Amino acid sequence: MKPYAELTKEELISLKEDLLIKYKEKQDLGLNLNMARGKPSNAQLDLSKGLMDALNGDSDLKDENGVDCRNYGGLDGIPEAKRLLAQVSEVSPDKIIIFGNSSLNVMYDTVARAMSHGIMGSTPWCKLPEVKFLCPVPGYDRHFAITEFFGITMINIPMSADGPDMDMVEEYVNNDETVKGIWCVPKYSNPQGSTYSDETVRRFAALKPAAKDFRIFWDNAYAVHHLYDDKQDQLLELMAEAEKNGNEDMVYKFFSTSKITFPGSGITCIAASKNNIEDIKNKLQFQTIGPDKVNMLRHVRFFKDLDGIKAQMKKHADIIRPKFEMVLKILKEDLSGLEIGSWIEPRGGYFISFDSLDGCAKRIVGLAKDAGVVMTGAGATYPYHKDPRDSNIRIAPTFPTLEEIEEAARIFTICVKLASVEKLLEEK
Amino acid sequence: MKPYAELTKEELISLKEDLLIKYKEKQDLGLNLNMARGKPSNAQLDLSKGLMDALNGDSDLKDENGVDCRNYGGLDGIPEAKRLLAQVSEVSPDKIIIFGNSSLNVMYDTVARAMSHGIMGSTPWCKLPEVKFLCPVPGYDRHFAITEFFGITMINIPMSADGPDMDMVEEYVNNDETVKGIWCVPKYSNPQGSTYSDETVRRFAALKPAAKDFRIFWDNAYAVHHLYDDKQDQLLELMAEAEKNGNEDMVYKFFSTSKITFPGSGITCIAASKNNIEDIKNKLQFQTIGPDKVNMLRHVRFFKDLDGIKAQMKKHADIIRPKFEMVLKILKEDLSGLEIGSWIEPRGGYFISFDSLDGCAKRIVGLAKDAGVVMTGAGATYPYHKDPRDSNIRIAPTFPTLEEIEEAARIFTICVKLASVEKLLEEK
Repeated sequence: MKPYAELTKEELISLKEDLLIKYKEKQDLGLNLNMARGKPSNAQLDLSKGLMDALNGDSDLKDENGVDCRNYGGLDGIPEAKRLLAQVSEVSPDKIIIFGNSSLNVMYDTVARAMSHGIMGSTPWCKLPEVKFLCPVPGYDRHFAITEFFGITMINIPMSADGPDMDMVEEYVNNDETVKGIWCVPKYSNPQGSTYSDETVRRFAALKPAAKDFRIFWDNAYAVHHLYDDKQDQLLELMAEAEKNGNEDMVYKFFSTSKITFPGSGITCIAASKNNIEDIKNKLQFQTIGPDKVNMLRHVRFFKDLDGIKAQMKKHADIIRPKFEMVLKILKEDLSGLEIGSWIEPRGGYFISFDSLDGCAKRIVGLAKDAGVVMTGAGATYPYHKDPRDSNIRIAPTFPTLEEIEEAARIFTICVKLASVEKLLEEK
Repeated sequence: MKPYAELTKEELISLKEDLLIKYKEKQDLGLNLNMARGKPSNAQLDLSKGLMDALNGDSDLKDENGVDCRNYGGLDGIPEAKRLLAQVSEVSPDKIIIFGNSSLNVMYDTVARAMSHGIMGSTPWCKLPEVKFLCPVPGYDRHFAITEFFGITMINIPMSADGPDMDMVEEYVNNDETVKGIWCVPKYSNPQGSTYSDETVRRFAALKPAAKDFRIFWDNAYAVHHLYDDKQDQLLELMAEAEKNGNEDMVYKFFSTSKITFPGSGITCIAASKNNIEDIKNKLQFQTIGPDKVNMLRHVRFFKDLDGIKAQMKKHADIIRPKFEMVLKILKEDLSGLEIGSWIEPRGGYFISFDSLDGCAKRIVGLAKDAGVVMTGAGATYPYHKDPRDSNIRIAPTFPTLEEIEEAARIFTICVKLASVEKLLEEK
């Protein structure tokens, strides 16, 4: 079919009538489908049945140093958990602090501590007239929500397939001392599923921040979340690169097992330089006696090592890969050549990023909702929920069944077509 | 024996020589005993073996509403966990938010949120020139550490057997709008083991705070931690009393299962008015998607209901009661009539509070340490670690074995005698 933009007004009106009939048919099904959040499906959760058997009443609950995990103590986690997450994080275990169940909470706390007490002796950010964060867009809504909550000014940085626009990043970071941070999901990014290039990582590592308490918030949420065995993105390790430039204190790396075992019942970590680790622990000691060591032990006994995690991730991939491929197949079948939308084919992560014609995203999400398909709110992938072009939509295909995904994706493409026709008709 | 103060200089010198011999004998044993922290013993931890069997790979991991506890969601906890902790907290389940493994962390976060964002619309405390907290003394060191960390001015309020000096509390709270909070451990208090009287609770409930964002931080850590079946303290429930005065928004209650199951692997809660719960959740949503629901389910399946918790606490009491009684017996045997120290006989909680002659606490703790007995640092029970009389020492008898407790208590009384004699000789 030819591009919609080349259709005459009459053709568009006729097309709209056809689409409205199809839309109503779908609406009449009274479906209740959800492609809004990056949640694992039940089949994925079943992969961690063994986690619930890793410990029982007869288990030895001591860590490898003989510390009783049942009792108080251990601000930064047990050694075997540090070692396991250090492997995933590609740093040495002395650069790891293990935390509780939510890496979002760890990131929130990291910003909160900087607000109230500064970083490594710097002025608390709450005492400064303005603090800014760079936000590669589109990006993760919950990152932006944290910085908005703390009144931090957010600056959009456009993303490409190679990562954020590094000219802009360098310009801001190296010259503006009110710029204190940048949110990054460097591998299988949320929502694009793209991975920062080696060149991008090297330019991050070589930044010369105007603010000595500038930090890269490197949320490596999808570090091992490949969709394919043979086609896997590789991310250059940032800390080692930063060290080469004497920049090791500039990086906070975050990771969690949320999408490996059970979301909300996993373990999480920060990986950072020794100076940062010491700084965090000095403050953390006022907040808690320590995170849940029994749950750390449970995870280590279940996985044993990095190979255990990798084996688990292959099983996840086998479950979710067909869902991604189904969405991509339908996008291609229904929208190719129409020039009313573009999308990225990710090799990992949890999302497919779709870009509609300008000004159509909100309408598409609204139409989908009214036909029983809940999508992430349009604008959610931008700071302040303001997508300047109103075009980006995040598709989360993991939670529904394959049949539901098929149905939801077909409804989605009808909504894309309908909203695009409406838009083109307005312009005629 | 007669009071030390009535001994002549010569008698004191001779007594000191005797004590030094006994002290050296103990020192030569090369012991390594610890009465510093309120940690459960291994035998107590063994009581929760069944917690590790409460869930396994075949368990249904849905909550009573059918929500899958393995997946994301549930900012405030699962209904059955709310109901269980609501029973302990003596409020309705809609006034409960369940959190992660550390009530200390919940209290820290509550102060941190007030600092950065205020309470129910009030000015963030970090924007005020001064914020003050009232601190009943002696009290819990980790409470005071939180307020010190945030630069909050702490004011000592003397404790009696009935609770804090309420004349002083009323004077400050009702007249000084910079007073924003008070730390309370109202039942089996840390370290005295005393319980606030009904009159004290009623006066708390009837406060007329000058600051509308004044909150009572009511850390009911030892709500069910009785030592005896027949002699149990009763604490009047504060929220219901506060409601009678239209003061329900003035109270934050905290509770955790840390000393019921495993410290560091339990569940915790805030109990508060609907306005407060709404205010907390509005902010909490930026911090986390939710606490560990699987661990909530594990606790509810293990205990079933409040009776299950009570049965568990009886078993705890059977283990720790002999330790408390051993310390009290030795204090009585070794120190009665000497007028060099006083102590309280608690009916519950985790501590025995000892008061030495003025100016002797640091010396006693130092002597004990050099003889292989680690005590809580002298001064720790006061804000800024400053015990104005240098006399309060917190004894924590739960963790060591009964035999270790006996040895440690004997060494302690020798140290008390020695330090007292030194002090009296100085004054001669």
